[in-house]
Amino acid sequence: MATAPPPWLVICRTVRFGETDPAGVVHFYHLLRWCHEAYEESLDRFGVAGEDIFSNPHAALPIIHCQARYHLPMHHGDALRVHLGCRPLDPTSFEIHYDIHRNRQVVATGLTRHLCIHPATRKRQALPTAVACWLDAATLH
Amino acid sequence: MATAPPPWLVICRTVRFGETDPAGVVHFYHLLRWCHEAYEESLDRFGVAGEDIFSNPHAALPIIHCQARYHLPMHHGDALRVHLGCRPLDPTSFEIHYDIHRNRQVVATGLTRHLCIHPATRKRQALPTAVACWLDAATLH
Amino acid sequence: MATAPPPWLVICRTVRFGETDPAGVVHFYHLLRWCHEAYEESLDRFGVAGEDIFSNPHAALPIIHCQARYHLPMHHGDALRVHLGCRPLDPTSFEIHYDIHRNRQVVATGLTRHLCIHPATRKRQALPTAVACWLDAATLH
Amino acid sequence: MATAPPPWLVICRTVRFGETDPAGVVHFYHLLRWCHEAYEESLDRFGVAGEDIFSNPHAALPIIHCQARYHLPMHHGDALRVHLGCRPLDPTSFEIHYDIHRNRQVVATGLTRHLCIHPATRKRQALPTAVACWLDAATLH
Repeated sequence: MATAPPPWLVICRTVRFGETDPAGVVHFYHLLRWCHEAYEESLDRFGVAGEDIFSNPHAALPIIHCQARYHLPMHHGDALRVHLGCRPLDPTSFEIHYDIHRNRQVVATGLTRHLCIHPATRKRQALPTAVACWLDAATLH
Repeated sequence: MATAPPPWLVICRTVRFGETDPAGVVHFYHLLRWCHEAYEESLDRFGVAGEDIFSNPHAALPIIHCQARYHLPMHHGDALRVHLGCRPLDPTSFEIHYDIHRNRQVVATGLTRHLCIHPATRKRQALPTAVACWLDAATLH
Repeated sequence: MATAPPPWLVICRTVRFGETDPAGVVHFYHLLRWCHEAYEESLDRFGVAGEDIFSNPHAALPIIHCQARYHLPMHHGDALRVHLGCRPLDPTSFEIHYDIHRNRQVVATGLTRHLCIHPATRKRQALPTAVACWLDAATLH
Repeated sequence: MATAPPPWLVICRTVRFGETDPAGVVHFYHLLRWCHEAYEESLDRFGVAGEDIFSNPHAALPIIHCQARYHLPMHHGDALRVHLGCRPLDPTSFEIHYDIHRNRQVVATGLTRHLCIHPATRKRQALPTAVACWLDAATLH
């Protein structure tokens, strides 16, 4: 039986004027910006402090890969819902899948892959505990 | 013997201040914006009028897929060269590969996939002649 | 006695990772983007259809002037509230003042000035009725 | 007799697809982004190292005020020239005026005001020597 995802895995976003091209359609790269903002908001709502992730002197989480597919045009004013689904890849990395819904339809999908490294040495290392907790809770079991 | 690509397939770009995060590293989604700007500049330099592509009432060229990989961090002030390589997929679509060089090293790669449709019906159709010419010249044979 | 502004004149926004510079401080031009998004959201919440404003074949509302002042640095993760205050200038134009609050402090201010023109002739004309209603309700009397 | 400005005070920029709204007109806030990129490029061309300005542990140069005026619409593909003119305000601050030309016409103007502070204490202090040299050379006497 399908269950609704927890609220910290569903982020709402309205398409704004400056994000569309002359055809009134979203210019493609904004989608990946929204995906990252959804990831940040999900961490916020789950209770992870941003400083633990984005200004942490002991761990950086660069994106090493991203991709997106566009199924239907998104227009100015469209109310979108971004559904996040997470997957650990190994103890040092994970990926997030983003389904972008308009009404009950998936209009686009996104993916970001994140690797934990030490900011100075740039060597791989285990994820910070706070991220590991969020990831565990966000992973579909 | 390797030959240098023609100048309309090599676009230069310097990383600007507002494009980096608190670690001084490029925030990931700017890369795909640069790729699109490089695609536009390549068309310009080849002699394709922007109106034939971006405000054409008979043909739209939406991106249906994009992706990027990040091998090394890019920093504020880095002088990058974006090398474009094109590939037709079928008579209605093509993809562009972007290799982002810093000095002689590839620091990131990008890919965009473009489909030609009619703006009103959104049905697939053949590429505009001007794009087909650019694509033919840009395709590595 | 001061009264609280109606909810459609107070828009909340959290500073996201890609909006800060290497010092962790918001890069200045994002503020004006947020101001415009707050203006759009205010119209939404008041019940004005976006198509009446942003894709109206009979009226365009270009910004003819904007400005911003930065009193205190805004950082990644800061929860900001944008307070809008409107003022008609003449029957064809108006301006919006934006006070950006963090907790109870104003950290920045913005201003945009909007002119109504005919999209084809670019001649000044009266504001669309829907905007005039929103403006009247949003004007401090 | 008017003399042409030195090349490091004239920066060229073509309007790109993602920077225009559904009317094909530049969305207003991009202009201020271009102004800042022109400022950075001017420093580059004059020979000032970016690290002296944008990652200097002894001096930060936040923008404390910005403004722009829009005289004529700028469209996708327009080739713009940004002319910079500088003015010291006192030993700790300066402003830059930007005239945006299309062909021989000024289509918009911008202004940014910069203050030198110590990054840690946020107290006003004298401009870094490299900036002071650039400013002196860039000031119309």
